Amino acid sequence: MELKRVKCIISYDGSNFNGFQIQKDARSVQEEIQLALFKIHKENINVVGSGRTDKGVHALGQVINFDTFLNLNENEWTKALNSYLPEDIHVMNSTFVDSSFHSRISAKEKTYAYYLNVGEYNPIKRNYVYQYNRYLYLDRMQEACKLFIGHHDFRNFCSNSIEEMESFERDIYSFEITQDKDLICFRVRGNGFMRYMVRMMVGNLIEIGSKRKDKSEISNRLDKKERQVTSFNAPSCGLYLEEVKY
Amino acid sequence: MELKRVKCIISYDGSNFNGFQIQKDARSVQEEIQLALFKIHKENINVVGSGRTDKGVHALGQVINFDTFLNLNENEWTKALNSYLPEDIHVMNSTFVDSSFHSRISAKEKTYAYYLNVGEYNPIKRNYVYQYNRYLYLDRMQEACKLFIGHHDFRNFCSNSIEEMESFERDIYSFEITQDKDLICFRVRGNGFMRYMVRMMVGNLIEIGSKRKDKSEISNRLDKKERQVTSFNAPSCGLYLEEVKY
Repeated sequence: MELKRVKCIISYDGSNFNGFQIQKDARSVQEEIQLALFKIHKENINVVGSGRTDKGVHALGQVINFDTFLNLNENEWTKALNSYLPEDIHVMNSTFVDSSFHSRISAKEKTYAYYLNVGEYNPIKRNYVYQYNRYLYLDRMQEACKLFIGHHDFRNFCSNSIEEMESFERDIYSFEITQDKDLICFRVRGNGFMRYMVRMMVGNLIEIGSKRKDKSEISNRLDKKERQVTSFNAPSCGLYLEEVKY
Repeated sequence: MELKRVKCIISYDGSNFNGFQIQKDARSVQEEIQLALFKIHKENINVVGSGRTDKGVHALGQVINFDTFLNLNENEWTKALNSYLPEDIHVMNSTFVDSSFHSRISAKEKTYAYYLNVGEYNPIKRNYVYQYNRYLYLDRMQEACKLFIGHHDFRNFCSNSIEEMESFERDIYSFEITQDKDLICFRVRGNGFMRYMVRMMVGNLIEIGSKRKDKSEISNRLDKKERQVTSFNAPSCGLYLEEVKY
């Protein structure tokens, strides 16, 4: 029996999960995958994800890994998992990877997308697109989002609950904002994101796009070592983890 | 006090409704609207819809009407209803109409859209796009759907439970099938649709697009007076009532 490490690319609808990470008394993506793996193995198998996604956040390209002694090929792993997973989680692809691979630690780059509706409230999209339902100045946001690109200290663009010892420095490779009719898409690519970081960057941009704030607000917070009031955290339903690169 | 008839254009996410029509022990769109109207009027107000939509079917342009003695203007009706309605129903527009107006009887034309995914299973769209997840020959369906256009007897393209006395004749004004990447959209416009009619037309087209059937199967059923085996009823989640014209 040879121990193999399996890497899976998965998608999920975050609406009915209390986030990715396993927890007591609440449904999580990690728990559902571990339950499926338990049914396949008849023993507990630990799942590692590329990172947590919060309650309500969706994924189109989350990456997980687990170890197994079972003798299934890559394609069979995809099929076996999908046959046991609930309909709001889907494995798109499974591959065998080196035992040094770690979904979180090996990750080099992540892409998140955030969707927002500036048109009329749409009940069908209420869990999938933030129903802002008011006008936003696209050009103001497109101008302001450039400030995030590069190597910066993001301590004023993340959750308060973050451990003090961690570095708050991250690299943002690109930040693009596009509009198609009433749908605005924010897409950000970087080497890593702290908790609430994408939603707070988007939250700041929304405040700039609505003219409640000027883009100097971002400069006033970015790379500042003293902790300031937390930013507006855009609702989780608009956020999608699109891709993790290794 | 003047009795006024109010016409509303509404949208809803059909996922958590057992259909439009009020019924015992199951959540319906009509009941939720009547509950909102009860809260506003402190008495029961009857709601008339342009037609029933089945469990799981969505609406982007359903039309309802009701009568009221309250002295709100059109815009206030939209706001009042939206403030009492649950988040999966939304009033887009309210107008006062003549007392001869009847959402169902006055309707002249309806447009339905049906969405189907031929690509990989997408958990985020599972309640909003039929996850067919296999290849379909678009040209075969585009060719076959033309057979439905015109004045026809659709008794073999509707629910068995339909009353015997009703006419099965309907006019289809247009039927278009388009594809954008993995998403196929069927859009049909006609003077009226019986229960399951759109889903059975789409179901037949899917069977033709997958080469399980030839388009002659439609000719064999259309305008035939003898009742045949019911057709494949495409799942409700892909269906949207887009527009009702008067």
